[in-house]
Amino acid sequence: MDLLKKHLVKPGASIKLASMKTVPDGPFEGKDDARNYCEEIIEKLREMQYRLFVEAKQSLLIVLQAPDAAGKDGLIRKMLGRMNPQGVRTYPFKVPTPLEKSHDFLWRVHKCTPATGMISVFNRSHYEDILAVRVEKLAPKEVWSKRYDMINHFENLLAANGTRILKFYLHISPEEQLERFKERLDRPEKHWKLNAGDYESRDKRPAYLEAYEDVFKECSPKHAPWFIIPADKKWYRDAAVGSIVYETMKEMSPQLPPVDVDLDKIRRLYEREKAELEKT
Amino acid sequence: MDLLKKHLVKPGASIKLASMKTVPDGPFEGKDDARNYCEEIIEKLREMQYRLFVEAKQSLLIVLQAPDAAGKDGLIRKMLGRMNPQGVRTYPFKVPTPLEKSHDFLWRVHKCTPATGMISVFNRSHYEDILAVRVEKLAPKEVWSKRYDMINHFENLLAANGTRILKFYLHISPEEQLERFKERLDRPEKHWKLNAGDYESRDKRPAYLEAYEDVFKECSPKHAPWFIIPADKKWYRDAAVGSIVYETMKEMSPQLPPVDVDLDKIRRLYEREKAELEKT
Repeated sequence: MDLLKKHLVKPGASIKLASMKTVPDGPFEGKDDARNYCEEIIEKLREMQYRLFVEAKQSLLIVLQAPDAAGKDGLIRKMLGRMNPQGVRTYPFKVPTPLEKSHDFLWRVHKCTPATGMISVFNRSHYEDILAVRVEKLAPKEVWSKRYDMINHFENLLAANGTRILKFYLHISPEEQLERFKERLDRPEKHWKLNAGDYESRDKRPAYLEAYEDVFKECSPKHAPWFIIPADKKWYRDAAVGSIVYETMKEMSPQLPPVDVDLDKIRRLYEREKAELEKT
Repeated sequence: MDLLKKHLVKPGASIKLASMKTVPDGPFEGKDDARNYCEEIIEKLREMQYRLFVEAKQSLLIVLQAPDAAGKDGLIRKMLGRMNPQGVRTYPFKVPTPLEKSHDFLWRVHKCTPATGMISVFNRSHYEDILAVRVEKLAPKEVWSKRYDMINHFENLLAANGTRILKFYLHISPEEQLERFKERLDRPEKHWKLNAGDYESRDKRPAYLEAYEDVFKECSPKHAPWFIIPADKKWYRDAAVGSIVYETMKEMSPQLPPVDVDLDKIRRLYEREKAELEKT
């Protein structure tokens, strides 16, 4: 199963999101098949994350971007967040605070990049400064248009220090998004999420897609690629992202460090302690 | 089942750890029974954590302290870390860095206290500055002995701002600890953890127990209590801590906020969008 190649955005590729599928066309036979696969993948991810942590030489940064209700939170809850929480940190990036705004746009994200051995998951990211900022007209073109290069240089810096970067766009259809908004209406414990603005911002979908297309074209180098994930089916979203993260970590091939302790000495210490305890 | 009362350290209590059980005496019939209970509790914790997050008025700080191999990591992996990772952050406190050492001992922990709606889990904590520092003689008594009050004032500050504080000591027998060290010898993927120092520091157990006893006596006020958890059985450790966290969150009683949007308006927006989509 090579979902990595299937959903990869090649460097400089001209993507037309309107023509990209939001529903899966294989390889799973349906929801149950994909969910079983997810359980297998989670076990494998846990094993890989353990090795990454113990090795403590490389790190992994996972960036999630998507329209509202496309499933970033579900993906974290059901897949990425099920590795050992001591080795994986999730960071939400919301509207910048006054302090954050008083710095360059990469300042707040740089603080959240993963230390060696660690995985960071960004729920939204520095890409909003080139997406939302552009579509919502929060800054003039001469400001945001320079950010493609700035982001590329920033991600180069991370990559050169041993950080692998995977960027996922969850691609959802307007129909499925609308149904998910409806579900919020039907479930009282989700009412706090309701917001008339969600409906109004649906009109901006074409502008957002265009902004994303430029991001894909400018910012998908080999060491920090984008993946466009059909996200109308939650089970496919989780399975595909899980699979791509696993394939990437397999390629990173984190190794348990060589044992530099004297095992015989430790065994003798154990036997001595054991004998001591039995005396008392 | 009132494990909260059972394991609570009352304010000012004189605890003798040598006389405290490290094995459970009920209420579970054994491992399977406790593990089933854990699965139920995790579901309940997830529900509570969701409410805490949405309410965004209170927060929860969970402090874990224990001898080596007593199971802090397992407890996080199998119980506390299974809530939504976007609402729970774990922070390990290791040997202070030069920057951390150049500040007061509460500086680095203060940065990790939970924001409203959030849960922080401390893997070791500011208590090491009154435990390890005392036993390992890293500072003179006149320094560490002032820290009981400093910690109490610090925790008062957090509590006054809506943070509930739960502190767990995982109580393990020297025999069980030794068996866990042995397991590391038997499993190659755990060899990186092996350290002759672990065996040598077993001699310091009485000194550590005494230091903990003073902490329990001085720093277990009603709003930030310690709990001593028998930890020889992993299943009991997880079930007991899960139960106490759940009882506490039930008492905190986080509430979903009242819905301040016009549901009818949202419904009309939905119907309008639906009709639009069907036209195209």
